[in-house]
Amino acid sequence: MNKKLIKKVIPVALVSSLAIAALSSGFTPAFAKGQQDKSPQIKNVIFLIGDGMGVSYTTAYRYMKDNPKTPLMEKTEFDKYLVGNQTTYPEDEHQNITDSASAATAMSAGVKTYNAAIAVDNDFSEVKTVLELAKEKGKSTGLVATSEITHATPAAYGAHDVNRKNMDAIADDYFDEKINKKHKIDVLLGGGLNNFVRKDRNLTNEFKKDGYSYVTNRADLLKDTNKQILGLFATGGMDKMIDRNDQTPSLQEMTKAAIQRLSTNKNGFFLMVEGSQIDWAGHDNDIVAAMSEMSDFEKAFKEAIDFAKKDGHTLVVATADHSTGGLSVGTNGIYNFDVAPIKAAKRTPDYMAAQIVQGAGVEETLKKYIDLQLTAEEVQSVKDAAVEKDLTKIDNAIENIFNVRSFTGWTTGGHTGEDVPVYAFGPGKERFAGLLDNTDHAKIIFSIINGNKAQK
Amino acid sequence: MNKKLIKKVIPVALVSSLAIAALSSGFTPAFAKGQQDKSPQIKNVIFLIGDGMGVSYTTAYRYMKDNPKTPLMEKTEFDKYLVGNQTTYPEDEHQNITDSASAATAMSAGVKTYNAAIAVDNDFSEVKTVLELAKEKGKSTGLVATSEITHATPAAYGAHDVNRKNMDAIADDYFDEKINKKHKIDVLLGGGLNNFVRKDRNLTNEFKKDGYSYVTNRADLLKDTNKQILGLFATGGMDKMIDRNDQTPSLQEMTKAAIQRLSTNKNGFFLMVEGSQIDWAGHDNDIVAAMSEMSDFEKAFKEAIDFAKKDGHTLVVATADHSTGGLSVGTNGIYNFDVAPIKAAKRTPDYMAAQIVQGAGVEETLKKYIDLQLTAEEVQSVKDAAVEKDLTKIDNAIENIFNVRSFTGWTTGGHTGEDVPVYAFGPGKERFAGLLDNTDHAKIIFSIINGNKAQK
Repeated sequence: MNKKLIKKVIPVALVSSLAIAALSSGFTPAFAKGQQDKSPQIKNVIFLIGDGMGVSYTTAYRYMKDNPKTPLMEKTEFDKYLVGNQTTYPEDEHQNITDSASAATAMSAGVKTYNAAIAVDNDFSEVKTVLELAKEKGKSTGLVATSEITHATPAAYGAHDVNRKNMDAIADDYFDEKINKKHKIDVLLGGGLNNFVRKDRNLTNEFKKDGYSYVTNRADLLKDTNKQILGLFATGGMDKMIDRNDQTPSLQEMTKAAIQRLSTNKNGFFLMVEGSQIDWAGHDNDIVAAMSEMSDFEKAFKEAIDFAKKDGHTLVVATADHSTGGLSVGTNGIYNFDVAPIKAAKRTPDYMAAQIVQGAGVEETLKKYIDLQLTAEEVQSVKDAAVEKDLTKIDNAIENIFNVRSFTGWTTGGHTGEDVPVYAFGPGKERFAGLLDNTDHAKIIFSIINGNKAQK
Repeated sequence: MNKKLIKKVIPVALVSSLAIAALSSGFTPAFAKGQQDKSPQIKNVIFLIGDGMGVSYTTAYRYMKDNPKTPLMEKTEFDKYLVGNQTTYPEDEHQNITDSASAATAMSAGVKTYNAAIAVDNDFSEVKTVLELAKEKGKSTGLVATSEITHATPAAYGAHDVNRKNMDAIADDYFDEKINKKHKIDVLLGGGLNNFVRKDRNLTNEFKKDGYSYVTNRADLLKDTNKQILGLFATGGMDKMIDRNDQTPSLQEMTKAAIQRLSTNKNGFFLMVEGSQIDWAGHDNDIVAAMSEMSDFEKAFKEAIDFAKKDGHTLVVATADHSTGGLSVGTNGIYNFDVAPIKAAKRTPDYMAAQIVQGAGVEETLKKYIDLQLTAEEVQSVKDAAVEKDLTKIDNAIENIFNVRSFTGWTTGGHTGEDVPVYAFGPGKERFAGLLDNTDHAKIIFSIINGNKAQK
């Protein structure tokens, strides 16, 4: 479908009615009644999405963080702030398990739609997002991700497209679509350089011309002080945390850089932060990468919480869009999820496989990056996979070592439909308690952003 | 180990210190502060355990209950009352994924212990349960399950044993262990006749001699009015809901019968209700049976909620002890969990397999009990499995038809470690909000039962 066919964004009046609809939503938050008025004013909203981060991921990560010397399991940063779960299903003619685009549109705009939709509904009409409303209200806005910044989840907050695959057009939207004659996203940090620097257009130059800083490495990000910034740290997706070098910022550092800039606006801000590649690890059935990305996301979450604790007027919500891979904590009848092999990995299987394809020896590569005494059979399984120099086969063989040793189960290379956890901190957190639908996030945040104006 | 080695139950003083420990528990309920005093007095506690009922089960069941003619998914009875999740790990030297005995001991007594422990700690000392404290305080008490009533979960509330396998000794405990010279459990309803009627002892006669009604079928249960009752409706586990005949009560009917009796005590009551076979279906990787048992459990939960709504002084909590089978909603890359094939089953695969082993034809049995046009390959797969008249092989072949058609994933025949949902209704429900540990349930209920006395 031609993107020109998209119908334009719904007017503010309709958005307000959506917000009102939230009050009669089927899923009534358990402790919402009578508590809204007591909360301090909510100036800022930081919404964090662990892509693919179902309950089995948050639990597996707790096993990872456990100190085996203490009798009880240590808590993760998330654990302290659990307020409930959410349903994730899309409104798609052919599929009842969501993709990231549909789920992100639900969370950004309060509208259930088809899989692949970027902030458009089932009639291909653009739907207003919470980021857009925030900008209308004079707030600063930001998107941070470890995928391409034009990938489905951030795109559904800052662009409109009939298909998530149109990442160039999504990058165009980030520059071209304006609110009150201003660019609608003040901070854009992530991967996806190739969608901005193209034969037909170089959006980095256009952003710079309009006053944005443009950075492509960690050092430049950390020394920049400009309020508006475009940071693109990879041509496509960024490296996973345990594979990164010191040229690449962490999700925490990008989150901090975003908050530092956005929080200078006295009208407040809206920031969406995505731990994008928890999902990618799940698709790959790679428990090492999944735990790496959970750690990256947890640190970003803590950065947001720490800011909110100091600020007092910041609501932080973290959730997932769906779960991925059918991950289970334990498999094949074994009542023991063993994190030691996972902790023994110094790089992801993908990273190791790439080294092998580029000519590194199997045995030395495994020895260099896995702090375990592998069996001859395990080494041989990777050697067998390496015969054809096929990256995927080598990757799968290495992943298999970790899955088997740790008793990690997987059922699919795709998404799964089970409810995902919701975490909240700060004023208004009680509105996210109980069982939410994914659309409720947008409905509540619309209401908060509108409500704050009413209080002025 | 000789059961005689068990050390006797810990004194009340220590139980109180456990209750106090709950206040400094690592997992602080999100909305507990300052709300406890406002609640009406809690006279009764109904604690329901969906054995094995992880988040993927409650979600899959919502897909089952969905009316495909409406755009949004209908809610289950559980959905309205979600307050958070809980951690389930045991304190076992060799395993970090719990069994039902350890988890039930955590929930009944507030103590983490080894897998297989029935209300004893890691030193094999008996630990006091919330049911026992309730009886001490003059409340009535009951246990209801669809497994043997001597199975791990109910046993951990009403007995003490070093090993869950000692179901005869557990039945003995139910009769022999007294509190203030009275039998400690007033209502016992479930399966497990063989553990009560034995060569060495007939406990049904002993219970009758002490004034209990003894019933073995639905009609007798429904017409009985005695306050104390032992109902044993199967030699082992009861039939699954969709396999039952009208001689067998449902979990809802047993729950109702229990509440009718227990609620006549002006001091209130404690009742534990288990949907035992959600877990058994999970071990079997049988999605038909799993959804049957979810339905049975949901109706029992609603029965408890309906009583609590009328009563006003009843706290209802429902949760799971762990998840089972590594169930995923969707599998093999398909973004569609199709419940139609599951709904097409009129009996469980186990039931059908038993018919075939007893001589029924494969084709006619499948036709009789599955309202689907099966393919020739599907029928042949069951015929192939039936050659050896092996119940398990036939069962697996029939289950496979449902798993493949519905896109249901499984990773194990055992348990998995992910957090499970917590539902609560009534006064005190806010104390269960956020992320609990399984031991917190007992700690909070000890505190409630002690607290109620203090208010008198």
